[in-house]
Amino acid sequence: MAEENTRQLQEAIDESGYKKVIPTTNKATLELNEEEGELIFLGRTQRGYEVDYDPQFQWGCSPTETLQLSLAGCLAIDVVSFLRKMRAVIKDFKMEIEGERNPTPPQYYKSIDIKINITGSGIDKRKMDRVISLSREKYCSVHHSLRPDLKVNVTYEITEAE
Amino acid sequence: MAEENTRQLQEAIDESGYKKVIPTTNKATLELNEEEGELIFLGRTQRGYEVDYDPQFQWGCSPTETLQLSLAGCLAIDVVSFLRKMRAVIKDFKMEIEGERNPTPPQYYKSIDIKINITGSGIDKRKMDRVISLSREKYCSVHHSLRPDLKVNVTYEITEAE
Repeated sequence: MAEENTRQLQEAIDESGYKKVIPTTNKATLELNEEEGELIFLGRTQRGYEVDYDPQFQWGCSPTETLQLSLAGCLAIDVVSFLRKMRAVIKDFKMEIEGERNPTPPQYYKSIDIKINITGSGIDKRKMDRVISLSREKYCSVHHSLRPDLKVNVTYEITEAE
Repeated sequence: MAEENTRQLQEAIDESGYKKVIPTTNKATLELNEEEGELIFLGRTQRGYEVDYDPQFQWGCSPTETLQLSLAGCLAIDVVSFLRKMRAVIKDFKMEIEGERNPTPPQYYKSIDIKINITGSGIDKRKMDRVISLSREKYCSVHHSLRPDLKVNVTYEITEAE
């Protein structure tokens, strides 16, 4: 029955056109900041959003940090979108993310733990399990772009609030 | 001979402690912006760098966009660092990035093309090939966190300038 519900939800999401209008091509640029000797890069999406990279963490973040945020962001968009389709009201939504990397180069991620703290009404364990599964299994583009042995652990805590 | 040179360069990089001081744990948070009905998330690294996600692309970028920038940034840091160790002088460094995604969910990346435009002195094809290989094969943490069938194509154009 839970599986049947999940399939129906997935069909409803597909029919609603969720993620159907996303272009398949993403363009961006990245350039070295001209300050002599510095190692700061400015990334820019095709729509002009900017991300600064600085391996010294002074004027920007590191690429592995945005990788981790990409996964969290992708999952978060799915989870909140799906819960709203299920008529849940979300008052507060926060994730704590912790990634563990291989200790020596290549320092790829071995695991990423995501703890969701969600506050609202009409949210229960059954809905949370379904929307997290749907995102992980079908809709999360970032999750599916990562190496398959990267362990992604998603947990959650629900606080009821009208 | 080229292989021998590459091995020596790798040993020199290892001995210099490159990427040795990087902590293996990365923490971050991500929270839903409180505007009613909006789907905007604020990501924040443990050092406070912020990235805004907005699937409507109005107030932020998308998670797949930062995934693509993560790869470019990681590769760029390695390439510029290694070239500097080889006494190259870099006047200008720019990447054009284009990712191609699966057309239907899950819309994972199938390929990411990175074109490097580099201007400076003491840069030649042999050095470029070596530093790009070293990054891809050993040091690029983001590259090694991605699914192995994701095709990453790196090309470059060198412009000499004193």
